[in-house]
Amino acid sequence: MTRIGKQTIGLDNRPVIIQTASIVGPKEAQGPMAGYFDHCLEDEFWGEKTWEKAESKIIKETVNLAISKSGISSSAIDFCFAGDLLNQCISSSFGLRDANIPFFGIFGACSTFVESMTLGSIFIESGAANNVICATSSHFCSAEKQFRFPLELGNQRPPTSQWTVTGSGCSILSSSGEGPCITHVTPGKIVDMGIKDANNMGAAMAPAAFDTLMAHFEDTGRKPSDYDAIVTGDLGYIGKDILEDLCKTKGYNISHNYDDCGVLMFDKLEQDTHSGGSGCACIATIFSGYFYKQLQERKIKKLLLIATGALMNSTSSQQGESIPGIAHAIAIES
Amino acid sequence: MTRIGKQTIGLDNRPVIIQTASIVGPKEAQGPMAGYFDHCLEDEFWGEKTWEKAESKIIKETVNLAISKSGISSSAIDFCFAGDLLNQCISSSFGLRDANIPFFGIFGACSTFVESMTLGSIFIESGAANNVICATSSHFCSAEKQFRFPLELGNQRPPTSQWTVTGSGCSILSSSGEGPCITHVTPGKIVDMGIKDANNMGAAMAPAAFDTLMAHFEDTGRKPSDYDAIVTGDLGYIGKDILEDLCKTKGYNISHNYDDCGVLMFDKLEQDTHSGGSGCACIATIFSGYFYKQLQERKIKKLLLIATGALMNSTSSQQGESIPGIAHAIAIES
Repeated sequence: MTRIGKQTIGLDNRPVIIQTASIVGPKEAQGPMAGYFDHCLEDEFWGEKTWEKAESKIIKETVNLAISKSGISSSAIDFCFAGDLLNQCISSSFGLRDANIPFFGIFGACSTFVESMTLGSIFIESGAANNVICATSSHFCSAEKQFRFPLELGNQRPPTSQWTVTGSGCSILSSSGEGPCITHVTPGKIVDMGIKDANNMGAAMAPAAFDTLMAHFEDTGRKPSDYDAIVTGDLGYIGKDILEDLCKTKGYNISHNYDDCGVLMFDKLEQDTHSGGSGCACIATIFSGYFYKQLQERKIKKLLLIATGALMNSTSSQQGESIPGIAHAIAIES
Repeated sequence: MTRIGKQTIGLDNRPVIIQTASIVGPKEAQGPMAGYFDHCLEDEFWGEKTWEKAESKIIKETVNLAISKSGISSSAIDFCFAGDLLNQCISSSFGLRDANIPFFGIFGACSTFVESMTLGSIFIESGAANNVICATSSHFCSAEKQFRFPLELGNQRPPTSQWTVTGSGCSILSSSGEGPCITHVTPGKIVDMGIKDANNMGAAMAPAAFDTLMAHFEDTGRKPSDYDAIVTGDLGYIGKDILEDLCKTKGYNISHNYDDCGVLMFDKLEQDTHSGGSGCACIATIFSGYFYKQLQERKIKKLLLIATGALMNSTSSQQGESIPGIAHAIAIES
């Protein structure tokens, strides 16, 4: 382990992402990424009585699937790092309560997936663990109900709004084995530029992504062209444009190899998702489904994965607060 | 770093708790622990317009106070680990958004404080960080409003209920310096024994405390008498009794040196707090205020600190779910 610059840690032992799994909902199953996910649900309930219970089932089965695909015993998993968007992170804690694995609950809103991989990779790198689970989930219906309006009202959604992804993604990190490796982590600071529109999360989170990206470049001496792909999730169309513009102010042109999971998840014209996808599961499922396979097949050799989160709740918005953003980055090599 | 048994990690470099700080509300200021806290508030608002904003101010000022007392520059703090009980952990993220320190949001309900110290100590031990902040908060009024009933209703509270502590506790862990050291961490599993009464958190959490305590004893070969004090927080009177009884079933008598922060915080007869204190701030303030000083003065030389959390929300209770518990333990030596 090497501290690099102010904010980045180099992982000399290179924790390996030995397996991933992803399960998504029916709308995601109609999008351009559908073919990459392990399992697509036919409806939002998956046989459960409530959306919250369905979301718990989704993360539970995603974790079970990742363990099963990895071929290692669940008793060989030392720790689990997981979180989600529901109040008090009940999707993760109810979904994983029977896993019998020491559990760290984490919350970084939509940045949670990379936060979990950051913490997990420090545990692997340091020898504190041999195998860890990193997982997160979100669910369109439970999120709308909790953060916005009852779905039954059929409220209109403004053009800046994003569509919470239903699904769960899970990575297993290991001290040995085959797979892409995590080489650097750059945990992010909270950045609040005063955006108050809870229907424009992309604008609220883009400055945090920018802050972390600049810290990563400054710490490592790298530049955009050192990566085959720089991927954020989930800034959506609006936040993606803002991040590209912000980078230009510092002399970095990321437009050649940059994409966002919120943009990738849905078909903008056909699926009526306005500024794109969002939710903890957006980057989690697209990394676990799509980018992990690209790394395995060496179509992408160096990936910078940046997850962004909006650290607000509905009460804070009602009290007139702005929306603090955060972004965590990890560099992955195949 | 040494993995010990299935669940425990021995910290050979012994991260040092170089400083702590604690701020509490007016009710805590009337309790038996009042003299140990750095600052006691005169009212629940502290000049803010809402309880949520007050809670954010409390954690912000507690972190600032710990940094100020430590004499190190805030720019020398590498990472912050923090969380709270409010939906989406807004107390921490709003309170610490101006801190300019890379931030890991965590959620373990009332176990969050020891979760933050566990993660922080792994970062210090491994060389990923030189100094980290571990902080958490809770607020009686914001918690009642969110989890139970509007305070204005004046609802009766059942005898099994606990009183959420208003306050915040913060520890600074460092790779060098003077102070008590963290020698072991035993992160806990989620344990759900089927308790559904959200007004009896002690009963819901005691089995998790028992599970982690037994894991710690089995992994390390230690027994209760190896510690000067075993301290949970916050099982309250009912959960404390249950934990003692559960330990007896395995042949461990912890009654001689065991106490609970929920029991210690309030005067049971005078303060009408039924089963005792609770909330992320309960163990955080009593450790930061009382036990840290006991360790510094070597009145306690070996402390096992176990924080317990109930991983539910009001929706899960309304949907008939039971309450998963979790407990994380750290061993501290002066």
